[in-house]
Amino acid sequence: MDALPAWPKGKKLVHLDLKGAPPRIDYLHKLIGLFSGLGANGILVEYEDMFPYEGELKVLQSTQHSPYSREEVLSIQEVAKSQGLEVIPLVQTFGHMENFSPPPHPPPLSQFVLKHKSLWGLREVGHCLGTLNPHREEGVRLVEEMLRQVVELHPGSTSLHIGADEVYLLGEGEESRRWLSTPGRTVQQLFLSHVTRVAKGVREAWPNLNMIMWDDMLRGMDHDTLKGSGLVGLVQLMLWDYNPTLDVKNTVYLLERYSGAGLSELWAASAFKGSTNVHTCVTSTQRHVDNHLQWLQVAAALPEGIHMLGIALTGWQRYDHLSVLCELLPLALPSLASSLQTLTHGQFSPEAQSRVTKTLGISSVEVETMESPSSTTGDSVLFPGRRLAELVVELTAILQSEELRHFEDNMFVRGWFTPYHRQRKIVSPLIAQQLQCQAMTLLALVEQRVAMVKKEMVRLYPASTAQEWVEQHVSPVVAPLQRVLEDIRASLLEMVPQIVSASMVGQ
Amino acid sequence: MDALPAWPKGKKLVHLDLKGAPPRIDYLHKLIGLFSGLGANGILVEYEDMFPYEGELKVLQSTQHSPYSREEVLSIQEVAKSQGLEVIPLVQTFGHMENFSPPPHPPPLSQFVLKHKSLWGLREVGHCLGTLNPHREEGVRLVEEMLRQVVELHPGSTSLHIGADEVYLLGEGEESRRWLSTPGRTVQQLFLSHVTRVAKGVREAWPNLNMIMWDDMLRGMDHDTLKGSGLVGLVQLMLWDYNPTLDVKNTVYLLERYSGAGLSELWAASAFKGSTNVHTCVTSTQRHVDNHLQWLQVAAALPEGIHMLGIALTGWQRYDHLSVLCELLPLALPSLASSLQTLTHGQFSPEAQSRVTKTLGISSVEVETMESPSSTTGDSVLFPGRRLAELVVELTAILQSEELRHFEDNMFVRGWFTPYHRQRKIVSPLIAQQLQCQAMTLLALVEQRVAMVKKEMVRLYPASTAQEWVEQHVSPVVAPLQRVLEDIRASLLEMVPQIVSASMVGQ
Repeated sequence: MDALPAWPKGKKLVHLDLKGAPPRIDYLHKLIGLFSGLGANGILVEYEDMFPYEGELKVLQSTQHSPYSREEVLSIQEVAKSQGLEVIPLVQTFGHMENFSPPPHPPPLSQFVLKHKSLWGLREVGHCLGTLNPHREEGVRLVEEMLRQVVELHPGSTSLHIGADEVYLLGEGEESRRWLSTPGRTVQQLFLSHVTRVAKGVREAWPNLNMIMWDDMLRGMDHDTLKGSGLVGLVQLMLWDYNPTLDVKNTVYLLERYSGAGLSELWAASAFKGSTNVHTCVTSTQRHVDNHLQWLQVAAALPEGIHMLGIALTGWQRYDHLSVLCELLPLALPSLASSLQTLTHGQFSPEAQSRVTKTLGISSVEVETMESPSSTTGDSVLFPGRRLAELVVELTAILQSEELRHFEDNMFVRGWFTPYHRQRKIVSPLIAQQLQCQAMTLLALVEQRVAMVKKEMVRLYPASTAQEWVEQHVSPVVAPLQRVLEDIRASLLEMVPQIVSASMVGQ
Repeated sequence: MDALPAWPKGKKLVHLDLKGAPPRIDYLHKLIGLFSGLGANGILVEYEDMFPYEGELKVLQSTQHSPYSREEVLSIQEVAKSQGLEVIPLVQTFGHMENFSPPPHPPPLSQFVLKHKSLWGLREVGHCLGTLNPHREEGVRLVEEMLRQVVELHPGSTSLHIGADEVYLLGEGEESRRWLSTPGRTVQQLFLSHVTRVAKGVREAWPNLNMIMWDDMLRGMDHDTLKGSGLVGLVQLMLWDYNPTLDVKNTVYLLERYSGAGLSELWAASAFKGSTNVHTCVTSTQRHVDNHLQWLQVAAALPEGIHMLGIALTGWQRYDHLSVLCELLPLALPSLASSLQTLTHGQFSPEAQSRVTKTLGISSVEVETMESPSSTTGDSVLFPGRRLAELVVELTAILQSEELRHFEDNMFVRGWFTPYHRQRKIVSPLIAQQLQCQAMTLLALVEQRVAMVKKEMVRLYPASTAQEWVEQHVSPVVAPLQRVLEDIRASLLEMVPQIVSASMVGQ
């Protein structure tokens, strides 16, 4: 394919999603330096529960990790500024507010935040943890206070992202149903009324602050609804699509519709990680390069007059507050570098690839196949987090092996150690030895690798993140092996107690 | 391929392995009638714990099922005789004597037999349940008494099979090690000394009874050892090979070696079921036809003077006493019919296949694809057990679906319901509903089919067999779904107790 025009102009923001696996501050500083070197000129920071909320909002702080301090939040901005990067904070104001929907009895070590029983009533519906009830004054006040604290701690920022994507189940709450029962009222209007209220409040408080919001809740609205939405002249829309086969024609059409309705200040949002599968650990560069190539086509196909302010390269840490951690940042740096270079070159040309491999000091643009640096290579060319990336790639490959992941498909388990046998504690001792040997060998292999991963991970992340990652990605795979070993032990004690020595039963 | 000569002459025995899934006596009678109609002229009956042992051997009777009564054992022989079938009983006398190696504390509902602590000492090594210690007089006396009771209840039989295959770990017991410490003594001699002692005892007691034994423990013996084994003139060897790619050349060579050493009365043993995988439920006809085609090649390649007395078509119910039930007889009748017809025709020709489909009233020789009989077809052409075969084929296909078998690979489980979440009772209620719905739909589908299978199975087998089959083949697959449902219930109660209604949590 011939090169497309490079990404037209405007901002290239790297999205820092801190709602899981918050990098240690010194690692974060290094990353920001790297982003700049890779061609970004801004960061979009989603603090969530890592923001040092104060006063009545203190309950929103993470209990799992220490949130960043005020000084650290300022230091992020200083480092960014010194690297020529703009900083845009993002605060969710409608959906994805899982933060604010605590379980009434917070389980010990709970990783989500809201500890305040009083906030329970702020959910649109009780069993949807993310959507704010738009009818409660205290909900709006909470959002306004969050915005105030975040904006005030970003004195140099000229833009603010107010989120508002994926407002699930809106309209299904009791108060909403009542509101909707008035003829002529729709869920779209309900959405718009809350968003415009929040946005107007921001405009009033900080008249010079640009506001950005996600577009997805507006996609189904017709021309007149968009035009009369109250958002025209108030917000900039950020249209997100992370698909490697993004539909160029439809995306252009959507941008034209927004623009035609007066919402002419537009952003794109692509992805460099966190959009493959909810449980993906190793980022595919090609997949994300493809997404950016599609976005380049969109930009090239736009008619005159549609003005793209920039693109945010999103890097999601999880799909939502309650899902597992997906790819960690170090695993996605080759993808991020490749995506940025693709935007710069208008294609993922040999030159673009060479720039990636040289900047990061790797032999392949895919993190999965990048070679270990030769022993003569100095530390200086290692990208920050590279060792962790290598270790996670190795461990993930082991965890994906059929032998381990589907251990219970093992002939010995299916043939000699079914629930029938385990419940009755019947096992052929010779088969049990085979099974023990297999399970213990596999477990030892995994445990050795896990120890290495954890050791490296805690250098870049809080220990609680390392623990969480292991419990989410390793524990499900090894649990069946551990159960088999326990049940074998119990069965052997039943079958051949005289000869069960510690060595045979294994430890 | 051109037709080979049909199986030369002699016996075609169908092996009835009763050490698992013993058919109800009326079903057994029907099967014997069918075997005759399919071209067999004998049955090789391995009663194991289903034999009505008496006196001090009463402890050997199955506790899981009622053993066949003396009258039933005699009725089997009468039905066989009326159909022109010879009956050869098989009694294990050295290896595979798991019967006689009870756990010292028999677990409740134990399916294996030996309840006698006193027999513990009869094992060659404590953790190998199958191999008899050949040094103990009481072990030999036990075997002799078993043989006596079985032979006396088979007054019309002219042959007896004394087993003696797979004598695992022989030589590793304490007494054997002492015995072997005398220079010049070998494990081969140890094996031969026990077998010849047992065989001589039989010859003495019943001089006219032919004795058959498995060949595998003799395969590694050299010419002189075989010649001097004491078995020449005493036993007939049955060489077993169930492989669809049986090595014809080596098998011919082995038969020549036995014959050359004076062991010239030889049998073949093929398989029509129970030799694919330890957990196979649905028999492949082609696989077993292939095994018989190889045996035909062996027969055709034998030099003059090597006399094959016959072939036993084995149909194993399990791999050993402690393994799961493999294919049930109804599932293997198309394979058995096809195997017998292959032997008769010298090939699996269209004529042979047509004979199979007509005799059994099926549209395909593969049980997996045989069509349901049209509604106009009378019951008379249904082979006995056909309905069960159909139901097991259907259920097995469901159980093998990726969606069910690897339910924990489900995106929602891997993304939102890992051990991390389950331990902390954290779940996104919306995701939980999705997961519940998926798991309950799958479970309902399986449970409905299982009920149908069980209902049909208990018409042909004891209820305990149906229960065992389900716990071995169904429970492992559904257990993860059941665990997910339990953990979701517990988590929802923690997360959203106010709104957890019985209907949402599911039952």
